[in-house]
Amino acid sequence: MTNSQQRKEMLRTVMWKEEFVIMIDQTKLPTRLVYIKCKKYQDVAKAIKNMVVRGAPAIGISAAFGLALAAKNSNARRPATLMNDLSAAYWDLRSTRPTAINLFWGLDRVMSVGKTGKNVSQIKDRIISEAKKIADEDLQTNITMGLNGANLLYDGDTVMTHCNAGALATSAYGTALGVIRAAKDAGKIVKVIATETRPVMQGSRLTTYELRHDNIDVTLIPDTAVGHIMSKGRIKCVIVGADRILRSGHVFNKIGTYQIALMARVHKVPFYVAAPVSTFDLKSNLDDVPIEQRREDEVLKIGKKRIAARGVRAFNPAFDVTPPELISGIITEKGVLRPPFDFRSESLVKEKEKLLER
Amino acid sequence: MTNSQQRKEMLRTVMWKEEFVIMIDQTKLPTRLVYIKCKKYQDVAKAIKNMVVRGAPAIGISAAFGLALAAKNSNARRPATLMNDLSAAYWDLRSTRPTAINLFWGLDRVMSVGKTGKNVSQIKDRIISEAKKIADEDLQTNITMGLNGANLLYDGDTVMTHCNAGALATSAYGTALGVIRAAKDAGKIVKVIATETRPVMQGSRLTTYELRHDNIDVTLIPDTAVGHIMSKGRIKCVIVGADRILRSGHVFNKIGTYQIALMARVHKVPFYVAAPVSTFDLKSNLDDVPIEQRREDEVLKIGKKRIAARGVRAFNPAFDVTPPELISGIITEKGVLRPPFDFRSESLVKEKEKLLER
Repeated sequence: MTNSQQRKEMLRTVMWKEEFVIMIDQTKLPTRLVYIKCKKYQDVAKAIKNMVVRGAPAIGISAAFGLALAAKNSNARRPATLMNDLSAAYWDLRSTRPTAINLFWGLDRVMSVGKTGKNVSQIKDRIISEAKKIADEDLQTNITMGLNGANLLYDGDTVMTHCNAGALATSAYGTALGVIRAAKDAGKIVKVIATETRPVMQGSRLTTYELRHDNIDVTLIPDTAVGHIMSKGRIKCVIVGADRILRSGHVFNKIGTYQIALMARVHKVPFYVAAPVSTFDLKSNLDDVPIEQRREDEVLKIGKKRIAARGVRAFNPAFDVTPPELISGIITEKGVLRPPFDFRSESLVKEKEKLLER
Repeated sequence: MTNSQQRKEMLRTVMWKEEFVIMIDQTKLPTRLVYIKCKKYQDVAKAIKNMVVRGAPAIGISAAFGLALAAKNSNARRPATLMNDLSAAYWDLRSTRPTAINLFWGLDRVMSVGKTGKNVSQIKDRIISEAKKIADEDLQTNITMGLNGANLLYDGDTVMTHCNAGALATSAYGTALGVIRAAKDAGKIVKVIATETRPVMQGSRLTTYELRHDNIDVTLIPDTAVGHIMSKGRIKCVIVGADRILRSGHVFNKIGTYQIALMARVHKVPFYVAAPVSTFDLKSNLDDVPIEQRREDEVLKIGKKRIAARGVRAFNPAFDVTPPELISGIITEKGVLRPPFDFRSESLVKEKEKLLER
């Protein structure tokens, strides 16, 4: 058991507890740590849509738990009726957000296991236990990923990260921030530069919160200061998470990731992506993946206060695409993948397909 | 007289009116258009420091008016005593902000003219009239600059701008936004993409306000979306203002300018700077120019609400440096300067030196 597992206060983002789904309300952070209880799958769907829970792996886990709630709450007496109920929940949950692949992966995995049940009670048990398994595996995946990535960091490094790819984006421990936690657990002193990540400010609100929680040195910068700080030679590498990674190596992640990767390349700063195998989408092409456009109000207002003039429109894409040529490595639980990325020949593909086929 | 001069409601940022300095309180925009009255030079110094007025030319004009207030309010009966009073005001005003050169230029110009007065009343008159002259000239300078720059824009272009280099950054009309106004006055339809410009949000708060005021099409984007939108080929060119331009062609401007210039280069988008001759500093070297570090709270809080976790530090440089190799042209009232910039051989130097020598 690693140091990180022994931490008493390890942040748990989403859990199955006493037959309900308990999750941190991330819209309340950093000022208040509030847990909400989801009793129906609709509560989970709403939480995903409103970004009460966000981050690709955490969305996948939450959606899986949503199906578990749908199974638990179904009054169906016949397997076919139960599968109908589950299917309705499946499609509702699936339509909450379009870009992060883990959402679909989590739902598909739970559904395919559920289908193997012979009767109502067995289907329900299998759905619930598979959802719990996804959450448990996620933590182990992140710890392994962290160990793989920690070798890329050296004592005294300053690492830039964007958005929140931490405990709060997963069940616990995190992907990009898991790598930083693992480096710290290995005795290395690593400082973090967190970009605030407008418009939803996951960097300011979540990354600073969870790094302070674990006593890791973090400095916040506006998104406008990335180029300036890189030009001063202060950044040793960048590590971000991912919402979807294509066979071609293109990475969909929080808006702003692409320009950070571009600036990292110009300033000769290595740019790493940390993501579990479940974030890979080996079927879609670049143009197949929808980039979620979110409400203009996220840009036009802060909280309830309007910050832009009346009558002004805003453009608010939630994600962008970083091309493989800007990526120095992709840190996964199976190891660090190096360019040129050709996932057709990687064992990763088999791993992924195995997961998807279950 | 151009269309722009005929606009009835033209925004006037800072004015000398009935023996007082009247300025828009820019911290209240876009929700309320409030004018404040400065009765003492200390009021002006405070307004500059707290960004009630901001933008390099507007700061220069305000500081000049600050000296005019100091002259008007002085009880001195002898020229030497008056010059002492003015000198105290000069140094107070000079220390408000360190990076924008127009502040020092405006103060020096007024002081050097004041010194030519033979008696108390003549010194006062000259100080006040020179300050008013600076404000009047600024508008004419911007209109000429606009005409020079408007030729770079074509009907249907979408132009990106950063921060606010508009009417609100000058006495009126603006530098970068003056070019856009002039293009519109010439019958071209130009759309503007404004970056919100964290942390002080001059893009959201001020640029959208003044462009809507003049009925110019403007869309707001988060600073994180610059690379993404450029990669879609939607931006025809970038025009920004400047706080200081060195002999070498290095441009000091709002934090975030450098990375936009870098992304413009990668995406083959022309990047222009619009600034009056008074923004050139032909004496300093790159390392001589201090980059103002502002309060961490600008990044850690929005209004009074804390957005980052307790105990977290922020890095908040107000400006960055864009090197000349990323600049396609510098639009001035004397014409559009093209790279390679060598201001030692330009008539600009003489012009500037003439202005400084007055």
